[in-house]
Amino acid sequence: MKTHRVMAKRLKGFRDLMADMLIPRERMIARIRVVYERYGFIPLETPMLEDVEALGKFLPEAERPDAGIFAFRDDEENWVALRYDLTAPLSRFMAMNLQELPLPFRRYQVGPVFRVEKPGPGRFREFQQFDFDSVGTASMVADAEVCLIMCETLESLGIARGDYIVRVNNRKTLNGVLELIGGGTALPEAVCLNILRCIDKLDRLGLSGVRELLGKGRKDESGAFIRGVGLEPEQIALVMRYLELPHERRDALLTALEAFVGSTASGREGVDELTEIHAFLVAAGLAEDRVTFDPTVVRGLEYYTGPVFEGALTFEIADEEGQVRPFGSVFGGGRYDGLVERFVGQRIPATGASIGVDRLLAALLALGKVKGRTATASVLVTRLDKTLTAEYQRMAQELRSAEINAELYVGTQGIGKQFRYASQTGKIAVVAVGSDEVARGEVSIKDLRLGDELSRELGADRRQWLENQPAQIAVPRAELVKAIRDILGRYPDDAEMF
Amino acid sequence: MKTHRVMAKRLKGFRDLMADMLIPRERMIARIRVVYERYGFIPLETPMLEDVEALGKFLPEAERPDAGIFAFRDDEENWVALRYDLTAPLSRFMAMNLQELPLPFRRYQVGPVFRVEKPGPGRFREFQQFDFDSVGTASMVADAEVCLIMCETLESLGIARGDYIVRVNNRKTLNGVLELIGGGTALPEAVCLNILRCIDKLDRLGLSGVRELLGKGRKDESGAFIRGVGLEPEQIALVMRYLELPHERRDALLTALEAFVGSTASGREGVDELTEIHAFLVAAGLAEDRVTFDPTVVRGLEYYTGPVFEGALTFEIADEEGQVRPFGSVFGGGRYDGLVERFVGQRIPATGASIGVDRLLAALLALGKVKGRTATASVLVTRLDKTLTAEYQRMAQELRSAEINAELYVGTQGIGKQFRYASQTGKIAVVAVGSDEVARGEVSIKDLRLGDELSRELGADRRQWLENQPAQIAVPRAELVKAIRDILGRYPDDAEMF
Repeated sequence: MKTHRVMAKRLKGFRDLMADMLIPRERMIARIRVVYERYGFIPLETPMLEDVEALGKFLPEAERPDAGIFAFRDDEENWVALRYDLTAPLSRFMAMNLQELPLPFRRYQVGPVFRVEKPGPGRFREFQQFDFDSVGTASMVADAEVCLIMCETLESLGIARGDYIVRVNNRKTLNGVLELIGGGTALPEAVCLNILRCIDKLDRLGLSGVRELLGKGRKDESGAFIRGVGLEPEQIALVMRYLELPHERRDALLTALEAFVGSTASGREGVDELTEIHAFLVAAGLAEDRVTFDPTVVRGLEYYTGPVFEGALTFEIADEEGQVRPFGSVFGGGRYDGLVERFVGQRIPATGASIGVDRLLAALLALGKVKGRTATASVLVTRLDKTLTAEYQRMAQELRSAEINAELYVGTQGIGKQFRYASQTGKIAVVAVGSDEVARGEVSIKDLRLGDELSRELGADRRQWLENQPAQIAVPRAELVKAIRDILGRYPDDAEMF
Repeated sequence: MKTHRVMAKRLKGFRDLMADMLIPRERMIARIRVVYERYGFIPLETPMLEDVEALGKFLPEAERPDAGIFAFRDDEENWVALRYDLTAPLSRFMAMNLQELPLPFRRYQVGPVFRVEKPGPGRFREFQQFDFDSVGTASMVADAEVCLIMCETLESLGIARGDYIVRVNNRKTLNGVLELIGGGTALPEAVCLNILRCIDKLDRLGLSGVRELLGKGRKDESGAFIRGVGLEPEQIALVMRYLELPHERRDALLTALEAFVGSTASGREGVDELTEIHAFLVAAGLAEDRVTFDPTVVRGLEYYTGPVFEGALTFEIADEEGQVRPFGSVFGGGRYDGLVERFVGQRIPATGASIGVDRLLAALLALGKVKGRTATASVLVTRLDKTLTAEYQRMAQELRSAEINAELYVGTQGIGKQFRYASQTGKIAVVAVGSDEVARGEVSIKDLRLGDELSRELGADRRQWLENQPAQIAVPRAELVKAIRDILGRYPDDAEMF
């Protein structure tokens, strides 16, 4: 059957992930799950596809859903979309099951989310998140616990204290600042959002950049002029004073915030909430080397209503352009008290956090905390003489029964190619037995790594090496498992990952 | 902010899965992964979304892709679709990486696939598959290994020999039968497919039903007449003789097949392949109680070109209508030598199998091999007196440090509701400490299960039970961990799942 040739292409912004990423990712996710379960969170899995309106990404005036999501009409002409995060589906789930679920409902969920973004280095259209949330409690104990879990998660992955920091802020204290800027009158919603957007850019633009943006505007790197918010000088000065509040110590910042925004209703609440969180953190033994209060943290504009959290890795790394900078945020979250409300008309307070799985994995790989292994089996049993397949199968099965992952070569190539295959697929030991050995009751085993090493050492004298084959041993057939264990024992790093 | 109330609805045919399904599913998948890795398969993860043409679901004459898949135009107006299986993306991946990958490329992949089907009991639009495949080898050793792995996978999940069977057939021997039916001339493709479809219905219709369908046709249950293939009586008799070949023993069937289709080129090849597989199975110690050759197995019409495999659970179970019948197929696969060819113009032989994760999980739950647990933490530390939260947090953390999953109550309700919450969320032990106990250096712990049991036994005398609270103990604060361990030790079933 001859058909026209189809182009094998993958969609732009999507990836095929192989063992070097998936094996460490699996272990990383398993570790994180242990931590989340340690605190009693239970798993939940919602569909990849949701009703667009339930996701909250259908702009009322628009004919099509938000362009940032993968949306389409299903077989019954309903607008449906691939989920863009795990929080919106959780809210939909809560609304559907509010009567039956004991509250607080504490769940974790891990899985892919989808966004129509311009693909770039480290930016993909399908990527994984790993969330945990407590829904149905307004208590700051739940928020403080989020901080604790963020620390414990990162440490359980081998990230040392000092290499990460959890930054906490409160949208209510930020709202207090906005109240102060407005003076007696409330600022228009759009102006508030613009001010928060400016503050959110502090990392990139620095204080002077933010000052310009809050005022008339500034020229960006390309020379284009970005129009500013247009605040008055005294309003800008107020924001600057706020951004410069010293926050090395949580208790000192609480006092300063109290003085700064304590006169506003919203700021007052925010400071009280942070004070409660601080008390819990002290009880849990979490000092400023792990959790700081940072008045400059905004964490997006989407739906947070109270405390917000950001878990950042502070060690430095070269980015795509070779610039050395702190690795940055891998964990984010906060309190969102309004998200279920749009379904049920009643406020269901909730708080939680989300790991950017791919970014965190990249960090662990960069730190050498996990190794990008490419093999699951360390042993290849070759088929030197295809008529002896039954015996090769028995040898492989013996190794497997001893809990050693062993691959039987199932291809059709000769022994030279089989050795090449073993080394290309990351095997450590190769079993190669011919009819002579079978007759003698022996097996030949080669330590591929030792072989490579000796081969490199001998350099030019390769012929001699090939003749002596010091990395190759012959043992009695009955000692196959023991001999393989001995060889694998030389490379203990391969067994332990974290 | 008052907005219009949005309906919280989940899309038809999709599910929210909770802990009772996810905890056993996670363990089941982990076990299966151990088996696949034992044989050296490595993980691969392809995207959820693929180019429709790459999936092979764009009918050349049609304006839209096949209606059975979720397809839509992306932001650049390309037709894209949610994957409907894991084999088509593997073929696309192989075609893209054929030059770099060592062959055979042996990968496993687990994840959701999507089909636009009429939802029904046990039929969903998003469901999980767990595949393993060897790509790039024509050797029957790879096919025989598939059978071995299917057996080992099912047994590793606690399914006893006798409760499952792996049935093997070969599309080439079926093709041999088609050749014989045609006599000297090849049957039209459509007729061949129709004959195979009839054979595929043997399970449901029985021999007489298949006979009718191969001939003029038959009335179905609703009384509607289904037109048959229209074969001649002697052609039908030939199929009947084929379907009735005794297949209790593989070797006897091989002899019978040899006599039946050995005269055709295709049948000849098929028998030779099955003979090779048989030899391997004998070497691996797999007798007919685990792997049979079954000439009636067809396994869909899609793309299989050689051996096909079906792993079925043979124990009986009541279906949705209360009818008792064998549980049926949970594992299916076969050889597909043409799937990569449409991209690269060159035959890349491949073989493998796929688990229907949801169906297999349903079987394990029905067999009691896994338990639908609803809790990850077995202990709830209540907050009887909210001012003692710091102490409660320390107790919870002590338990967690001892690797006991312990939830701190982070809600805002009173102690009665907290006990109710503990029982609703499946906790075993509850820690409840007030300021009195703290002063005495004691903790109170209640064994909820023992409490329930005693409460039931005492029946009417509930008041007495409430006063004595035999399930409640007080221990010194320093013995918290030990006391909890003792209680959890009473319920060892909760720790072990398989």
